[in-house]
Amino acid sequence: MLNEKALIESIPNFSEGRRREVIDDIIAAVKAVEGVKVLDHSSDADHNRTVLTLAGSPAGLREAIRALYRKAAEHIDLRKHSGEHPRMGAVDVVPFVPLRNCTMEDCVEFSKEIGRMIWEEFGVPVFLYENSATSDARKNLAKIRKGEFEGMAEKMKQPEWKPDFGGDEPHPSLGVSAVGARMALIAFNVNLDTPDVEIANKIARAVRHISGGLRYCKAMGVELKDRNQTQVSMNLVNYKKTPIYRVVELIRIEAKRYGVNVVGSEIVGLVPMEAIAESFAYYVGLENYDFEMILESRL
Amino acid sequence: MLNEKALIESIPNFSEGRRREVIDDIIAAVKAVEGVKVLDHSSDADHNRTVLTLAGSPAGLREAIRALYRKAAEHIDLRKHSGEHPRMGAVDVVPFVPLRNCTMEDCVEFSKEIGRMIWEEFGVPVFLYENSATSDARKNLAKIRKGEFEGMAEKMKQPEWKPDFGGDEPHPSLGVSAVGARMALIAFNVNLDTPDVEIANKIARAVRHISGGLRYCKAMGVELKDRNQTQVSMNLVNYKKTPIYRVVELIRIEAKRYGVNVVGSEIVGLVPMEAIAESFAYYVGLENYDFEMILESRL
Repeated sequence: MLNEKALIESIPNFSEGRRREVIDDIIAAVKAVEGVKVLDHSSDADHNRTVLTLAGSPAGLREAIRALYRKAAEHIDLRKHSGEHPRMGAVDVVPFVPLRNCTMEDCVEFSKEIGRMIWEEFGVPVFLYENSATSDARKNLAKIRKGEFEGMAEKMKQPEWKPDFGGDEPHPSLGVSAVGARMALIAFNVNLDTPDVEIANKIARAVRHISGGLRYCKAMGVELKDRNQTQVSMNLVNYKKTPIYRVVELIRIEAKRYGVNVVGSEIVGLVPMEAIAESFAYYVGLENYDFEMILESRL
Repeated sequence: MLNEKALIESIPNFSEGRRREVIDDIIAAVKAVEGVKVLDHSSDADHNRTVLTLAGSPAGLREAIRALYRKAAEHIDLRKHSGEHPRMGAVDVVPFVPLRNCTMEDCVEFSKEIGRMIWEEFGVPVFLYENSATSDARKNLAKIRKGEFEGMAEKMKQPEWKPDFGGDEPHPSLGVSAVGARMALIAFNVNLDTPDVEIANKIARAVRHISGGLRYCKAMGVELKDRNQTQVSMNLVNYKKTPIYRVVELIRIEAKRYGVNVVGSEIVGLVPMEAIAESFAYYVGLENYDFEMILESRL
């Protein structure tokens, strides 16, 4: 059961990345909500999409998501929207991540409450995804979103694509939304001193889950032309079970096969303190590691 | 100039570590203050002393220190106090450490304000120490405290030991206090797979400042009899300039001379998130490290 001391992260994506005054108005409405903090926001004009990072209490987030849908309804009409990033909703996806004083199960429960609210108050059908999914086919956001806004009316007529909340038609201007609980995701890249992207791809295949590597690692090779280097570009989707250090050290080991070295790394976006602390504990051999030993965890 | 968004840590030590009801009453009074949080407390009966770890706004800490002195005056009489740890005051020492939105200079200024308050409101003379010290002789707490409560009346008659606030006599029951700003201190130990404490001592001498090692490292060798191992036991007094990873890696290098290995480490008490993050960044070669990338730094 979710208590009001729970701290939850939410990373809603909405389908506007160009009109500055609209973006600002939406963010301002969310910022005005008590009990929630806007940790970050980033808009991409090509994608025509904005990613918000929020953290707050359940009550705070409930109001923040309300404010977001209210403003989206005012400003966004998907019939007039285009961009490179696939999307099916004005508010496309609303993930919830447990941060403190709550479990994944709590966040699943919370996501269902919010999904119901989105349907009941705004008439937007909701698919539950990831840990909140009601079937395996709905775990993966890409599968739910396939067909996008334009294909959704047709898709929802199929019984297996009836939404978890709402009827079998998308909202005319707001489309449909995916809502669900998931682990924090870390976007982490490791740089290699070779310009040969095939080597980066071989290493990516060695460390990623889909081709035999670490269970919670997604990876691909990327060229860094201006540096004459390459990169293993990754998403770590469960840093507790596939920690950062294990990924780095495994990449070092694989790189040796090709006479290649790890020359650096980068984190894109935000990273939870715990993910850093656990890898630190590995490197210095900390015997008594406990998250509570970090001063800031007690604030 | 200190603004009210500043977050400061304070680690006051008071001279009672035995009478549970007195300790609880003092801690309860501090906890009741708004704008300050008791992050930790630890009492030692042999030392007859309690260490509090607080964090709060300047206004919150001001009230917390007031509450602490009020309660100390009610419960503690140094004429009846004994314990293994040297002490000169009922509230023996009040350090301030900058955490967020403030500089060391801000904390020096704040420590002077608090020192003046302690003298004016409680009649307890105050010596400013560490970064707040008004002379080199007063930087070191041990030098100020030498002679302890019992010798303080005599010592304070010497012109060079006139306190920074107050007259030349200690308070009859509360003695005198040291107040000052300092960096966060990390108590960090590295364990070695040798039972020979002489090797641990040689390594300690190699890494510590006093005998030629790292500028902000204090170290000594310690036996861990029940493990048949030894330890380099350290205080890192400036983790920004002498970071944890550099200490660990230098110990590994020195240990090699003796065919000895680092087998583990431990942190005693609390450690600032930044100290962990900076060493993590070293080990994974993070090119874009910035404290702000840690989600919790934005809460």
